[in-house]
Amino acid sequence: MGFCKQLALKTISGLSEKTARWRVQSNLNRTSRYFTTQSSDLNIKEPPGPSIVTSEIPGPKSRELKKQLGEIQNSDAVQFFVDYNKSRGNYICDVDGNTFLDVFNQISSMPLGYNHPALLKAIQDPNNLATFANRPALGALPPVDFVESLHTALLSVAPPGLKQLLTMACGSCSNENAYKAVCMWYMKGKRDGREPNEEELKSVMINKTPGCPQLAFLSFMGGFHGRTFGTLSTTHTKPLHKLDIPAFDWPVAHFPKYKYPLENHVRENSEEDEKCLAEVEDLIEQGSRNGKPIVGLVVEPIQAEGGDNHASDEFFRNLRKITTKKGVAFIVDEVQTGGGPTGKFWAHEHWNLDNPPDIVTFSKKMLTGGFYHKEEFRPKEAYRIYNTWLGDPAKLILLKEVIKVVKKEDLLTNIATAGSQLLKGLQQFEQKHSHLIFNARGRGTFCALDFVDAAARDRALKALHMKGIHCGGCGSKSLRIRTALTFQVSHVNIFLDRLSQVLNEGF
Amino acid sequence: MGFCKQLALKTISGLSEKTARWRVQSNLNRTSRYFTTQSSDLNIKEPPGPSIVTSEIPGPKSRELKKQLGEIQNSDAVQFFVDYNKSRGNYICDVDGNTFLDVFNQISSMPLGYNHPALLKAIQDPNNLATFANRPALGALPPVDFVESLHTALLSVAPPGLKQLLTMACGSCSNENAYKAVCMWYMKGKRDGREPNEEELKSVMINKTPGCPQLAFLSFMGGFHGRTFGTLSTTHTKPLHKLDIPAFDWPVAHFPKYKYPLENHVRENSEEDEKCLAEVEDLIEQGSRNGKPIVGLVVEPIQAEGGDNHASDEFFRNLRKITTKKGVAFIVDEVQTGGGPTGKFWAHEHWNLDNPPDIVTFSKKMLTGGFYHKEEFRPKEAYRIYNTWLGDPAKLILLKEVIKVVKKEDLLTNIATAGSQLLKGLQQFEQKHSHLIFNARGRGTFCALDFVDAAARDRALKALHMKGIHCGGCGSKSLRIRTALTFQVSHVNIFLDRLSQVLNEGF
Repeated sequence: MGFCKQLALKTISGLSEKTARWRVQSNLNRTSRYFTTQSSDLNIKEPPGPSIVTSEIPGPKSRELKKQLGEIQNSDAVQFFVDYNKSRGNYICDVDGNTFLDVFNQISSMPLGYNHPALLKAIQDPNNLATFANRPALGALPPVDFVESLHTALLSVAPPGLKQLLTMACGSCSNENAYKAVCMWYMKGKRDGREPNEEELKSVMINKTPGCPQLAFLSFMGGFHGRTFGTLSTTHTKPLHKLDIPAFDWPVAHFPKYKYPLENHVRENSEEDEKCLAEVEDLIEQGSRNGKPIVGLVVEPIQAEGGDNHASDEFFRNLRKITTKKGVAFIVDEVQTGGGPTGKFWAHEHWNLDNPPDIVTFSKKMLTGGFYHKEEFRPKEAYRIYNTWLGDPAKLILLKEVIKVVKKEDLLTNIATAGSQLLKGLQQFEQKHSHLIFNARGRGTFCALDFVDAAARDRALKALHMKGIHCGGCGSKSLRIRTALTFQVSHVNIFLDRLSQVLNEGF
Repeated sequence: MGFCKQLALKTISGLSEKTARWRVQSNLNRTSRYFTTQSSDLNIKEPPGPSIVTSEIPGPKSRELKKQLGEIQNSDAVQFFVDYNKSRGNYICDVDGNTFLDVFNQISSMPLGYNHPALLKAIQDPNNLATFANRPALGALPPVDFVESLHTALLSVAPPGLKQLLTMACGSCSNENAYKAVCMWYMKGKRDGREPNEEELKSVMINKTPGCPQLAFLSFMGGFHGRTFGTLSTTHTKPLHKLDIPAFDWPVAHFPKYKYPLENHVRENSEEDEKCLAEVEDLIEQGSRNGKPIVGLVVEPIQAEGGDNHASDEFFRNLRKITTKKGVAFIVDEVQTGGGPTGKFWAHEHWNLDNPPDIVTFSKKMLTGGFYHKEEFRPKEAYRIYNTWLGDPAKLILLKEVIKVVKKEDLLTNIATAGSQLLKGLQQFEQKHSHLIFNARGRGTFCALDFVDAAARDRALKALHMKGIHCGGCGSKSLRIRTALTFQVSHVNIFLDRLSQVLNEGF
């Protein structure tokens, strides 16, 4: 959507009344619900800059290891082998001696970059040793400091209005269990206090209705929510992810597709919003009519894997209104957007909702998976949302340190500042290379750029590698930027410099 | 099934020709494919024995913490809060100063018990620091030692015949992805070299056939394979786990239910095997006829959560034969049985199969999730079985140490010895308290006992707590024993002594 672009335009020229609906709270807003502003001292000794010493990436050592791994499993997705001992802050070092500025960060899952001193210290703290050595069945035998850890690591940054919380091992499990919580909530309402009857208890054991009811989740074309059977039924990115796998016959709505630049297409884009919202409402009504009620709607604040597709804050506010009106649980999947990269801790905070989401799921930058939820989505009985590990307290130790650093260093402001510079740069390149790149967009450093086609994008990613930038793709032809929260203007400048070289030199 | 019981009987009296089909390889067999016998020196400073200082369990500090946790999530399943710093070896210490002999081990997931020196040392090793601090996206950017870790930690104990391997974060994800690998394998065969066509690629994006084909997995009543949507469709333990959750309409076969003592019911139990095998064959044929082909069959070597239900080695050998004949993938879920507790590293090794399973899944005692598989189940394309983390190399560091200790200390032999003593004791109690307890059964220390009803079992578990034994339940009325691999005859004696007291005193 180019929110910062709008902001820049607003600053320069002001926006017409018509564009008011697009207005978003400034990423540069320096006050925050969570964090106080302090002088920034990131205290990470990073390399002076990227440095490439091999004539191709992956280099010979990586290629040899890739071949060895290929004997055990398909290793075609491996980009290079990493020396994690050497990697520092925003720089990732490979086994061939190359040093990259990392603007992809393990698919957005390194909140503070590599080997942050606070994490190294926490791991070496003798008081934490037992947590690393003894992984508990958290639901049965939690450690003495579990409640305190949930408060310090997770509840201190909980989305507004959500105070209930379950931890899980990964993003897919977080979404799967969030969906389950929604089903239980819906059926509890439907039974209206009645205990499950014999027929329900018997049929459920052989996968039949009424015990296993035909409930549906509504998701969006382009959305990605995981790769397990339930979440995969709500994932709609590439055929590759879904082909050959049985799916629940759950409906799919269209996610808005905007025309850029936004300020020139206000009417069309507003109509696009309305069309998509009408479809959502229509599908919910269809579900009720045909006995396959839609009990939950799941959406990413920015469709990440699907191509960094943005929608207006108003679209999301209306989505929340529709779900409230229809009694459909509103699940916001913040697995990739959560934890700060958009300049707010949770991307959905940009929407300024009156009524919070019912469930917010997380993983990646949060180091542990899990979901926050409203009170009514809490399972009444024990063991209904449960598994052996329910996450890992060792990850909570690290997350506690991350949250401390984010607060102390005011990293959300850092990301807003760096993100603003980053998007400005991308927009300048877009103007200069308008035949090649389009749709610079982003919030915080969660930015993206479209190339003319997939081949051009892939060539650009490769060329960036050779200039010491490790970046990612998404959707069919987008370049995706996912920095650590410690990414600063100095890093932005290096990235833009190398991207500029790539664009100027051709690739 | 009481395999050790059979063994004991065989030793004493010999078995008739008729019982030959029940014969199993001795748990006491001291040679092993993996491990050499050495003098045992476990080197863990354990407390001298259980010690209970509070008048009830959970004690006051646990109750207070449970209340606090209850404000954040349903905490009804919490048994007590644990002081993991204090816990040692086979002893778990709670926050109220109680010390329990732990014969449940975090639902069978602590291979070496608490705070094993080898694990503490590995965590403190500066060479391992970066692995704990920087969790990679393993499929894209593996660490330099990843191939070596897979070999040392996982392939050195791979089930015979399986050399391909993928790591995952938990048991459910391991099974979900194993099922996906089977679907891809089946459809690849069905397409016979043809590339996916337009109709498949288009339909898959909206959850429709032919892209999302109606494939089915066959599972057994009483089986437990996970709680995510796909695995939950193959789980059939209690209504509580499945109620209200939509499921794939996949078929369920009956798992053999034997009459005990086995040696008195050879003919009936053999007929039971045959009946169940005929049903499996029938369901596979039905699936082919009605266009919902069964592509995989999933089974636990011992149905754990479902009540420690055993089946004969011959049953499993015949199951393997049927699946081979019908072209159905044979998936052995060793999430709970894997890693040594039955006295072999993988429980299915007791079966002496001619043709290995197609897939063996693991988690719990293996510290990381994942699955081994035959070459033909390897996805051809990158990113098809994939997620951000694909497990966690930090767990591989710990698993490497576990495997080293298991080999050095010959812990499989230890488990066979301790298990034999344990089962002998349970059988003696069964004879003495024949009105109350039944069906003592087990392999290694993976043992169980049925009570007359659920209430009696639950009272016994509570009474054991008060005598310093932490134990688990499973099924509707079984007591489940899941020791660490360091559990020795001295621990068996303490456990049997306390159980004897409970049984004698009434409860």
